[in-house]
Amino acid sequence: MNSFEIRPGTTADIPALLRLIKALAEFEKAPHLVENNEAMLREDFETHRSFEFLVAELKGEIVGISLYYPRYSTWQGRCYYLEDLYVEPEQRGKGIGLALLRATAAEAKKAGANRLDWQVLDWNTLAVEFYEGEGAYVEKEWWNCKLEL
Amino acid sequence: MNSFEIRPGTTADIPALLRLIKALAEFEKAPHLVENNEAMLREDFETHRSFEFLVAELKGEIVGISLYYPRYSTWQGRCYYLEDLYVEPEQRGKGIGLALLRATAAEAKKAGANRLDWQVLDWNTLAVEFYEGEGAYVEKEWWNCKLEL
Repeated sequence: MNSFEIRPGTTADIPALLRLIKALAEFEKAPHLVENNEAMLREDFETHRSFEFLVAELKGEIVGISLYYPRYSTWQGRCYYLEDLYVEPEQRGKGIGLALLRATAAEAKKAGANRLDWQVLDWNTLAVEFYEGEGAYVEKEWWNCKLEL
Repeated sequence: MNSFEIRPGTTADIPALLRLIKALAEFEKAPHLVENNEAMLREDFETHRSFEFLVAELKGEIVGISLYYPRYSTWQGRCYYLEDLYVEPEQRGKGIGLALLRATAAEAKKAGANRLDWQVLDWNTLAVEFYEGEGAYVEKEWWNCKLEL
């Protein structure tokens, strides 16, 4: 029985969300860079409405997440940004990541977005192929700049 | 007299904003990709509040812009994203770009953001040096993914 459910995340899911955010950071070789915590996530979700998220539930456990929010393209107008997409390694191969990506795109479209954007690490060949297979265009000529405030 | 003023953009500045968005797209070798127009920009600014912008005014003319909005980092929490920063070529060397960047960072900080993010094209060496000189960290290992909705 591999049936899973994709549903909107709620405040009650914040502990599971943080656990999977940390697991993804580990995969990205940067677990020490996660400064976020449950209290911050709760305030940013409830008070500032900084993001929304979907969870994938399997046998009562949360095994995957997507976290997203609106962004703006001066070229194409309103878009959505998919910040994190993650499925636990032992639950892969069941279509959960694909279902999360498609559900996120559907939420973005419903909200009036013209495009869904996200990023992938240049060494993550499997993910690049997966995204291109879904029709995404992968750009390789932009670098990210970050200024601490 | 090279004195300029940085101030928040208003609906009345939308035509100048679009002119400079198009000039930046031209510099980025992609003028044909600008699908935005004055009506869309006005609705996205006034109704959806998708972005805010600053303008640099010199002798009554708008010669530079920065356009930004909130984003969310699952690692660091609330951040701001600088989508466009542009100064007309004939007005460069007067510190207008630097003033726009710093004013945008100040707005982001005032709004509670922990970091200001943006992107630079890998061939734009002058811009990379300018940003690094301001203390920005430039990441070279992420690729952008875009899915049309």
